[in-house]
Amino acid sequence: MTQPSPARSWVTSANGHADFPLQNLPLGIFSNGGALRSGVAIGDHVFDLQAALQAGLFDGKAKEAVQAMAGGQLNAFFELGRGARVALRERLLELLREDSPSRRDVEALGASVLLPAGDCQMHLPARINDYTDFYVGIEHAQNVGKLFRPDNPLLPNYKYVPIGYHGRASTIRPSGTEVRRPKGQTLPAGQAEPTFGPCARLDYELELGIWIGKGNALGEPIAIGDAAEHIGGFCLLNDWSARDIQAWEYQPLGPFLSKSFLTSISPWVVTAEALEPFRRPQPARPEGDPQPLPYLLDARDQAGGAFDIELEVLLLTESMREQNLPAHRLTLSNTQYMYWTVAQMVAHHSVNGCQLQAGDLFGSGTLSGPGNGQFGSLLEITEGGKKPIELASGEVRRFLEDGDEIILRARCSREGFASIGFGECRGTVQPAR
Amino acid sequence: MTQPSPARSWVTSANGHADFPLQNLPLGIFSNGGALRSGVAIGDHVFDLQAALQAGLFDGKAKEAVQAMAGGQLNAFFELGRGARVALRERLLELLREDSPSRRDVEALGASVLLPAGDCQMHLPARINDYTDFYVGIEHAQNVGKLFRPDNPLLPNYKYVPIGYHGRASTIRPSGTEVRRPKGQTLPAGQAEPTFGPCARLDYELELGIWIGKGNALGEPIAIGDAAEHIGGFCLLNDWSARDIQAWEYQPLGPFLSKSFLTSISPWVVTAEALEPFRRPQPARPEGDPQPLPYLLDARDQAGGAFDIELEVLLLTESMREQNLPAHRLTLSNTQYMYWTVAQMVAHHSVNGCQLQAGDLFGSGTLSGPGNGQFGSLLEITEGGKKPIELASGEVRRFLEDGDEIILRARCSREGFASIGFGECRGTVQPAR
Repeated sequence: MTQPSPARSWVTSANGHADFPLQNLPLGIFSNGGALRSGVAIGDHVFDLQAALQAGLFDGKAKEAVQAMAGGQLNAFFELGRGARVALRERLLELLREDSPSRRDVEALGASVLLPAGDCQMHLPARINDYTDFYVGIEHAQNVGKLFRPDNPLLPNYKYVPIGYHGRASTIRPSGTEVRRPKGQTLPAGQAEPTFGPCARLDYELELGIWIGKGNALGEPIAIGDAAEHIGGFCLLNDWSARDIQAWEYQPLGPFLSKSFLTSISPWVVTAEALEPFRRPQPARPEGDPQPLPYLLDARDQAGGAFDIELEVLLLTESMREQNLPAHRLTLSNTQYMYWTVAQMVAHHSVNGCQLQAGDLFGSGTLSGPGNGQFGSLLEITEGGKKPIELASGEVRRFLEDGDEIILRARCSREGFASIGFGECRGTVQPAR
Repeated sequence: MTQPSPARSWVTSANGHADFPLQNLPLGIFSNGGALRSGVAIGDHVFDLQAALQAGLFDGKAKEAVQAMAGGQLNAFFELGRGARVALRERLLELLREDSPSRRDVEALGASVLLPAGDCQMHLPARINDYTDFYVGIEHAQNVGKLFRPDNPLLPNYKYVPIGYHGRASTIRPSGTEVRRPKGQTLPAGQAEPTFGPCARLDYELELGIWIGKGNALGEPIAIGDAAEHIGGFCLLNDWSARDIQAWEYQPLGPFLSKSFLTSISPWVVTAEALEPFRRPQPARPEGDPQPLPYLLDARDQAGGAFDIELEVLLLTESMREQNLPAHRLTLSNTQYMYWTVAQMVAHHSVNGCQLQAGDLFGSGTLSGPGNGQFGSLLEITEGGKKPIELASGEVRRFLEDGDEIILRARCSREGFASIGFGECRGTVQPAR
């Protein structure tokens, strides 16, 4: 599947584009004043798949793939599995490359198939049936564990169980959705009784999102060797977190209202095929760490189940916007800090017979690195508010304030290959109502 | 809304029926060899609402209500809110009561609208978008807390926060679905490393299920005084639990695979109107307990927001079935052990702006009473397996064995009113695959 870097597109903005060169071709759902449609990001444009279908540009499996995208959601397309996705990608590469034999035909269709991205509104790519948030960022688990249990940061199950919990599906929204500061119960320091009011410790969490492709039947686990067939694609995910609400509510059943007010995702589904050049072996477990149990162990997954994706978080305050200051980088991290691979997450989630459905979403958990500048949340960066950040605007931040915008980005680079990105996942904090 | 007890139906099996007299009229989705249809349970029969609509038996709001049930799910009907539900109930009472002016018309339609319940297969009543499991059974919370923290069974947040967590929506199934024993990781006593295999401590949990009616918009909390408009109905719920998997996986983010293999519900939606005679004041909080925070406090809810519903759990083993022995009663409890009302659950869940959607399901959490015979799980009854139960078949049980069937029932009784029930929620344990 790996495309050699020199492949260029006749959509000139794609060549050298930071996120969406010809080699990426992420899928999404957009609108342009009318109904929801499926599309592909190419440079600064969106290629309208439904319009291209109507123009007769697809046949065979690629046609089936686009037909399954009708209705403004990718669920049925995800359910088709890998074969349809690969066929569609191959056809798109053929249509959009510089020396495409179909170039004149497609160019003749003009703005009916190729829309400026700035004119398109992006939507959730699928109806999300269930959302599961994992906790596979081991550095984050250690950093947070240290704040609560300095002597024993990592719980005994961590290196055996890909820890996860069910999240709220109804409040997942695409990039750009405003982040209303939630209200809730919090326990003021030194008090015995809680108070009610706006969250005072609003935070972001940098995560990789994983779209489930083909589902499984109730009671029929997905073997780790088959997991690739069940993974539909990837996005960025910001698991907005109200730390003060979380601290008071989370015992004994886990986080609830501290997370369920909003989860933001980048709207483009980056495929496994686009990420193929950026796969890497699962990082070696430190000496003394246990081997995964057999149901989590697969030679191919160990050899190439991880990813080298650079992840970045930027902060832009109202004052910084007014002063035209550049965004402040909060985090520069990488998916290499995932202790478990996506295939291990799929195998674990279904090993009890739990049914996964096309369009389910997984979050990886916060992907922090071990060092300063690599922490994927303010909780870690400021050590729970103790070490404020100083900004070029003269402001300081312990947690997010009203008007603050958080921007997630991701980028994959490798010598000899075109770099690709995920597009942005943005959200601006609005005052509590 | 309260119907006087003497009201009788011309569907004679309804009169004195343990679950479905004229006063109940629960709604559900059934099939009878063909497509999914909506119906009402009346005695030993199912009244086919779609067929009755086609026969012209509804107009106005009642007609709108039944029209919204097309497509084999009640979501759009739930979204219509209380008015449509009440209009439908009033029309059904008119059609089905003994002295109904429409009796001859309906009887003339015969088996096209009134089907023997035994010929109908019941389905999930709605597409469940999100499922939330609460923990409002305070006696259960105390009993379980004692097993883990003898000195401090109830955590400090319990009497302030209606504790809940997100559950898995994709594996909720109607009564009668087989319960496949899950496999998973467990930590054998005294060991440092987990093993993988079939769950050895399979348990049931007796819960009340709550269907969400009208939804709310993201960011707009539901005030406790408005909660009734957002509650679509009630069912029984068995939160099957793998205790050994749970003990190993649940730190720090809560139960996950130990619950997500299956949740069973009774298929009939019992309405708030049917339960009206069985409302009761919220039980007085013991002296020293804090008042609920203002967003959880409503005078009308305090005065009549709780229910008097008797809840029962029966066990039937393979050997008991072979010996024709009656089922063994494991639990006789009551909804009065809910520390928080359903309205408080709705207000809490949405107070951070979380969007609830029509067809969302809540579980109450296990509803145990304080005494022997009132415990809503084997974990409590056998004290984690230490005190086995002896059965008339000569068998003992610590946890569930393959072939065991668990049956949940509920019954509401009050002097001067017809008793109503919920129908059953059954499930039989099948060996691990």
